[in-house]
Amino acid sequence: MLNHKSPVEMTIAIVGLGLIGGSMALEIRKHGLANKIFGVDASEENRALALEMGLADTILTMEEALKEASLVILATPVSTLPQLATRALDLTSGDCVVVDTGSTKQHVCKAISGHPDRRRFVAAHPIAGTENSGPSAAFTGLFTGKTNIICEREKSSEDAITAALKLFDMLGMNTIFMDPVEHDRHAAYVSHLSHVSSFLLGRTVLDMEKDEKNIFNLAGSGFASTVRLAKSSPNMWAPIFEQNAEYLSQALLEYIMHLQRFHYHLMKKDTTELMRIMTEANDIRRVLDGIALKQTEKPS
Amino acid sequence: MLNHKSPVEMTIAIVGLGLIGGSMALEIRKHGLANKIFGVDASEENRALALEMGLADTILTMEEALKEASLVILATPVSTLPQLATRALDLTSGDCVVVDTGSTKQHVCKAISGHPDRRRFVAAHPIAGTENSGPSAAFTGLFTGKTNIICEREKSSEDAITAALKLFDMLGMNTIFMDPVEHDRHAAYVSHLSHVSSFLLGRTVLDMEKDEKNIFNLAGSGFASTVRLAKSSPNMWAPIFEQNAEYLSQALLEYIMHLQRFHYHLMKKDTTELMRIMTEANDIRRVLDGIALKQTEKPS
Repeated sequence: MLNHKSPVEMTIAIVGLGLIGGSMALEIRKHGLANKIFGVDASEENRALALEMGLADTILTMEEALKEASLVILATPVSTLPQLATRALDLTSGDCVVVDTGSTKQHVCKAISGHPDRRRFVAAHPIAGTENSGPSAAFTGLFTGKTNIICEREKSSEDAITAALKLFDMLGMNTIFMDPVEHDRHAAYVSHLSHVSSFLLGRTVLDMEKDEKNIFNLAGSGFASTVRLAKSSPNMWAPIFEQNAEYLSQALLEYIMHLQRFHYHLMKKDTTELMRIMTEANDIRRVLDGIALKQTEKPS
Repeated sequence: MLNHKSPVEMTIAIVGLGLIGGSMALEIRKHGLANKIFGVDASEENRALALEMGLADTILTMEEALKEASLVILATPVSTLPQLATRALDLTSGDCVVVDTGSTKQHVCKAISGHPDRRRFVAAHPIAGTENSGPSAAFTGLFTGKTNIICEREKSSEDAITAALKLFDMLGMNTIFMDPVEHDRHAAYVSHLSHVSSFLLGRTVLDMEKDEKNIFNLAGSGFASTVRLAKSSPNMWAPIFEQNAEYLSQALLEYIMHLQRFHYHLMKKDTTELMRIMTEANDIRRVLDGIALKQTEKPS
């Protein structure tokens, strides 16, 4: 095994060369974290593009790539992760560390919970992304100042956590630790719900405005901002919504209830109630300002 | 009457010195469209701030300001416009032109429809704004490349349309013409619904996440973008929603129906349907790209 940890001889395998895997590859090159990047991707188009963009030195099969890697990054849709994480631990050995980057954490943690090499796995969720996908969407700076969440820290070895933190620190991320159930519950409200609300807003407007000229004419920057996430990849998001269906369902029902209540007050012409609801919603400004502030601070 | 149209002697009165009125003042100064700007505002705080920021040369009462103006811009909440537009036409005379900037158009058009000086009025909706409000939110460039809608063009005199276009062209806007009913119907779907969806998304997340630490930790740029409009001014938006309640109600019911249908397929684990809905929503990318393209073109 060639699992040397020295930067000059470190080999990183990235499985999934899309927005996340590709952007990590660009940062790894920029910071010289590895002297070799092996790329794995199920799509022939992605493989060709990744090579062309220099996201990987060599494109290999899972088996080939994982044989020589000292760090494996899994950046594929969450539906593939339970099986892929198990397979990655099977195919690697020694002190090779496997890190995933999925937006849901319960399923992958459960899948590897009984694996004899569980301690070489780090369950992570770097909270970064755009509405674009595929290798061509990759860029440096995607992760800077953002939050990374590691789940079940206590089930990973100290070596594995150190290797993962080296990666996420290099990306400029603030890493925090969380239970996978808590992660998925909060992600449903804060992240997954906003994607659903945006997808369906886009769907509603396209449905009602058959003549797109009217969207062109009446859309301000507010519409563009609110509907931006409706451009997101269905291949990435359908599995996230399905894996987190229980909490997302709760979040959706809450959201629908708030919309219906607003509709009720609108129909009753109850200005006081409408004003109260909107003024309470305004409080999100304080929270968003806090997030903006957090992202300008140094990682702790 | 001192209604000279020559730039060096033109006086513009701006009623409402918030984001829209204030930003127009800055552009008028920048381009030298008027040699004098009279400001009118119901709020003492706004009046002081507007003077301090140079948004107006003098702060006057409605009566005083409109006596000498050759162009009057109404930029107050839409609930005030039906009465204010009538009063502005009463207080002015000669060739003074009154332009409003409200986000709904049926109510104001109806209010002045029988006024003997209807032809001096131009019903406009410059589609520009941010989630911020008040004089301190004003900035130059707010209107550049955006769309302005003028309703009932045929009810304004050619002189009035020319004066209004001079203003909106100076702001860098593309002006199009539309029927007020059509305007309000499309605005409900494309603009007002996205504000409601954002207000209620903010409200839902604040309601469910009592510990704001979790919003801080799990919010990505997607959440911030989708919930941005929840920071908007209730004083501005409650009257818009109320004046456009009929069409907004239809839009809201459509949106709720789409959300409920998505929830149903999520609970049935119907991946095919979820993928189909999201893929259809993706088509908004083409429309948004068209809008971005439009904004880089020269006003026609």
